[in-house]
Amino acid sequence: MNADTRAVVLLSGGLDSATVAAIARAEGYSLVAITFDYGQRHRAELLAAEQVARAMGVVRHVVMPIDLRQFGGSALTSDIPVPKGRDTDAIGLGIPITYVPARNTIFLSFALALAEVEKAADIFIGANARDYSGYPDCRPEYIAAFEQMANLAVAEAVEGRLKIRIRAPLMELGKGDIIKKGLTLGVDYGLTRSCYDPDASGRACGRCDSCQLRLKGFAEAGMPDPAPYAP
Amino acid sequence: MNADTRAVVLLSGGLDSATVAAIARAEGYSLVAITFDYGQRHRAELLAAEQVARAMGVVRHVVMPIDLRQFGGSALTSDIPVPKGRDTDAIGLGIPITYVPARNTIFLSFALALAEVEKAADIFIGANARDYSGYPDCRPEYIAAFEQMANLAVAEAVEGRLKIRIRAPLMELGKGDIIKKGLTLGVDYGLTRSCYDPDASGRACGRCDSCQLRLKGFAEAGMPDPAPYAP
Repeated sequence: MNADTRAVVLLSGGLDSATVAAIARAEGYSLVAITFDYGQRHRAELLAAEQVARAMGVVRHVVMPIDLRQFGGSALTSDIPVPKGRDTDAIGLGIPITYVPARNTIFLSFALALAEVEKAADIFIGANARDYSGYPDCRPEYIAAFEQMANLAVAEAVEGRLKIRIRAPLMELGKGDIIKKGLTLGVDYGLTRSCYDPDASGRACGRCDSCQLRLKGFAEAGMPDPAPYAP
Repeated sequence: MNADTRAVVLLSGGLDSATVAAIARAEGYSLVAITFDYGQRHRAELLAAEQVARAMGVVRHVVMPIDLRQFGGSALTSDIPVPKGRDTDAIGLGIPITYVPARNTIFLSFALALAEVEKAADIFIGANARDYSGYPDCRPEYIAAFEQMANLAVAEAVEGRLKIRIRAPLMELGKGDIIKKGLTLGVDYGLTRSCYDPDASGRACGRCDSCQLRLKGFAEAGMPDPAPYAP
């Protein structure tokens, strides 16, 4: 690989995308990170994304404001309450209330534009079918269809200079294995944030679906979560 | 068709998208229009989009700000000069400097989110392979690939309640035939704007690629362009 072969990484500030960034870095890529400010209620994630980007030594970090609130319909961007205290076995049955319409499609579309400008063939995303089976845009068949479309969409691909690949290396991993993988690659999970409903100082609630899956993952990995939780 | 069967229409304020909106309306749809404010230099288009939306009687008009300038690389969003006075036969050979990376993919992704929220199966876009062969994301194979991906991306489609269709009714039409079609449907082309480089009062330059294609189209349709041009 060329010393400055770039890859675009979708970086949310959460645990999965930090792990994906570490995987891409370990493969030898220079990282161009893109983070979306989409009116999410968990703004602690944006601060976490900046810290993770710095820790990963990215060569460029784009923070893209997009206004998904205009569409409505999700607990992540509107006033619908975030569900709390659900059994982790029930999480992933059906489409969750935290579903945001076409979110990964919008995110990957911007990543595709950035990939073309940066001449980056590879776009890394932390999509995971196992823990988030409720999100249709986290499934391998969706990722494959996006990749196929992408190679017909941008000039660099159509003219044969770039073969776009959507890389989702966490697709089949459970949360515990994701964390174990990241630890071997030196990810500082204390910088990451996953909570859908943190308090004013950015501490996790410990009870929303995302917190529960994260805590279960750290339990599986046999270590405590280094991120802060509200008492 | 139900009295309030909705369709999403990508409305730029240009001639093509106004025609597409009229086609969708003639098919009996209630129109939900989406217009992108993407830092384009031709802001006269945004005002035109509002006027066209009003004239078409849309039930909702979303104006979505997106920041494509962060990516750079196009004469439409940066300081690269817009080409002028090119022969219309040369327009469409190769990727034009006015190409914006992944533009239609980003636009269609937002339209897809809106379609899911509005329970609209049909998304209308003014893509045209004939006059704009330089844009890879205006080709039928691209549109088909996006449609396939879209039906794997959103919950309404995956759960079988909506079969997303990307409708590009102008795909094979020349500019003259697009204008003739629109005139039979009552489109007021005096409201539309196409110029890549209008003056401060929104008058067209008459010399950029877009103006030249437009003027050629009106000549083919056998009528003068009712939109204003700088002297």
